Amino acid sequence: MLIVQKYGGTSVGNLERIQNVARRVAETRRQGHDVVVVVSAIGGETDRLLKLGADMIQHGSPRGSQQREMDVLVSTGEQVSAALLSMALHDLGVEACSLMGHQVRIVTDAAHTKARIASIDATKLRAVLDSGKVAVVPGFQGVGPSGDITTLGRGGSDTTAVALAAATQADVCEIYTDVDGVFTADPNVVKTARKIDRISFEEMLELASLGAKVLQIRSVELAMKNRVPLHVRSSFHSGEGTWVTDEEKNMESVVVTGVAADRNEVKVTVRSLPDNPGMVAKLFEPLAEANVSVDMIIQNVAEDRTTDLTFTVNATDLDRTVEIVEGLKADLGATEILSDDRVAKVSVVGLGMRTHAGVASKVFRILANEGVNIAAISTSEIKVSVLIHSKYSELALRALHEGFGLAG
Amino acid sequence: MLIVQKYGGTSVGNLERIQNVARRVAETRRQGHDVVVVVSAIGGETDRLLKLGADMIQHGSPRGSQQREMDVLVSTGEQVSAALLSMALHDLGVEACSLMGHQVRIVTDAAHTKARIASIDATKLRAVLDSGKVAVVPGFQGVGPSGDITTLGRGGSDTTAVALAAATQADVCEIYTDVDGVFTADPNVVKTARKIDRISFEEMLELASLGAKVLQIRSVELAMKNRVPLHVRSSFHSGEGTWVTDEEKNMESVVVTGVAADRNEVKVTVRSLPDNPGMVAKLFEPLAEANVSVDMIIQNVAEDRTTDLTFTVNATDLDRTVEIVEGLKADLGATEILSDDRVAKVSVVGLGMRTHAGVASKVFRILANEGVNIAAISTSEIKVSVLIHSKYSELALRALHEGFGLAG
Repeated sequence: MLIVQKYGGTSVGNLERIQNVARRVAETRRQGHDVVVVVSAIGGETDRLLKLGADMIQHGSPRGSQQREMDVLVSTGEQVSAALLSMALHDLGVEACSLMGHQVRIVTDAAHTKARIASIDATKLRAVLDSGKVAVVPGFQGVGPSGDITTLGRGGSDTTAVALAAATQADVCEIYTDVDGVFTADPNVVKTARKIDRISFEEMLELASLGAKVLQIRSVELAMKNRVPLHVRSSFHSGEGTWVTDEEKNMESVVVTGVAADRNEVKVTVRSLPDNPGMVAKLFEPLAEANVSVDMIIQNVAEDRTTDLTFTVNATDLDRTVEIVEGLKADLGATEILSDDRVAKVSVVGLGMRTHAGVASKVFRILANEGVNIAAISTSEIKVSVLIHSKYSELALRALHEGFGLAG
Repeated sequence: MLIVQKYGGTSVGNLERIQNVARRVAETRRQGHDVVVVVSAIGGETDRLLKLGADMIQHGSPRGSQQREMDVLVSTGEQVSAALLSMALHDLGVEACSLMGHQVRIVTDAAHTKARIASIDATKLRAVLDSGKVAVVPGFQGVGPSGDITTLGRGGSDTTAVALAAATQADVCEIYTDVDGVFTADPNVVKTARKIDRISFEEMLELASLGAKVLQIRSVELAMKNRVPLHVRSSFHSGEGTWVTDEEKNMESVVVTGVAADRNEVKVTVRSLPDNPGMVAKLFEPLAEANVSVDMIIQNVAEDRTTDLTFTVNATDLDRTVEIVEGLKADLGATEILSDDRVAKVSVVGLGMRTHAGVASKVFRILANEGVNIAAISTSEIKVSVLIHSKYSELALRALHEGFGLAG
């Protein structure tokens, strides 16, 4: 088998842990598999480098050319890990060879600090594997169209691993982390949360975007598109973790696979909008142009032909959103703009919803029984999300987890 | 003019000093010059990375593949400096672009951790300069024949700077350091030592190899071969430093340019060797094969047809030397092997010696007046070296400095 293994910052947190990772890689190699290892920077190192760069810039935030240099700077974190792991492997008698993003070549677009992978040439990687060596690739980094060093943005190492697995047609991409796998709910909140053995890409995508922080969304999309089976597992013991794969027959028998809460949204309310056609477009088009993505929307038509429009945006976009909407206020004829960050989006996710009716109403009933008010609702084929007051977030998660029979 | 500027580890020791370097580069740029900047790692960073790598290796010293990874690891030090300096330049409104060794391309041989530059493609560097930008290149690193990251060994950044100056036919290569230039003697020992305004490559080579640590020998050789004028100067003020150039007419009017002491040699004595032809070859051939370079040699023929042979080697080669000579003892018929590290080699250097006779005898007279015994003598066209007891090292330096009229 050809196995891609990705180790995060905690797993390579110090020299001892890197040696631990080396032993695991060596073990996989001794079982006869070809191995490509993708490593993150030593835990905390990326933040240290980012701070060093930020301190260097006295005048505002990094501009184009400075972002190019930020990538040169920050990519050294993963380069150090890759070199150290290769040395640790040699020390165990396992031949290994580090390959930087530009050596592999992992070609990206030119969007420094948040580049996207355009193509991967697997020739050199193949040659290293064929010579009997383990290939060690720093995550997060690539090479732009004109040969510049680029980075993929936060959590980019997951994406590197999946992209390399796709390019080499690996049998599996193992994502090693400090938890045992993907859980039915956040175990810190729901004590009865259970590790999920198998989950579909679609469900994982919903859970990832809803605040389950185990996998980066982009890497799940990429795995789904290229049908790369993911195995999310602990780097601290050898037990099985969670397999993220194409949908399988028996998956649908479970109605709900997991529940998640997202506390990163903020509710914005525009008061007393005249209830005219086109008013909503007038409001949301400028937001879209400013790259603010609006998640949930609720519109209540009032009796005096005005309406209160409520929507949610990511907390990091709040200032920009309020600025834009305030600018439109007079033009729109609105009376007031309110915002509230004491909200949580709680969601239940499961492939089975496609064939089982009544999941949404069951969600409402469970929350009503607990006295939790619902401010907004959004649904997809395999997900029901509700916006509630943030103080009920944990209560709602536990009730839904219990109500849908997810406990172990 | 096209100017290559090299800043060492002390000059880029922290963020403030990097900003200071940026201001100096910006000033050079504003005078209308094209600038290529070569930077070392932040002071202490290379040692930190070397230690990290050494700690990773549990079993012996780094082997071939581990040396390859050591280069991947250690080269990040200069990469960080190059990125930070480029950002600092942008902050001052000066367009800059960092280019790693593999981007320039600085092609080296495959001798990891001590690679030698084979060729430099100046095309990309030229393109960056032609677009009006400052090129910032990390010193010490290159790319091997098969695309691997290589490093040039200790002090390699000087060599990078001179090689880039040669490849781009720069008008001058400025070496910025924490001293004011090259001195007639070590100012810590000889209070009256004077900064030398101009010195020839040949003299600089002798002084560099005799313990004046301002420039790395390899970089002076390269500058001499390519006739790249060097300007060694302080990064902390704007005064002129020392120009190292091709020989100029007026240089010969000065008999002695500088004096230097080298405490890194050890004296080895082989007692009572039979005074037969071929005996010396029998002793020195095995040393040469073991890559031990013998510097000074003294042979005293005694009356009973045996001789005491004394020679000096670098202190780091002492253990190996004694081991080899002990192994030969019986075969040679020698009675005893002695070694003594309480020696210093004191030298006077000057182009003028080629036309002025009597420098050697003046050296002997000056030292005799101070009661300093001479254990060995070696001379070249432009240098006289004597081996003395190390306790007289400072005294001898001061006496020679005074005797040859070098004081300011």
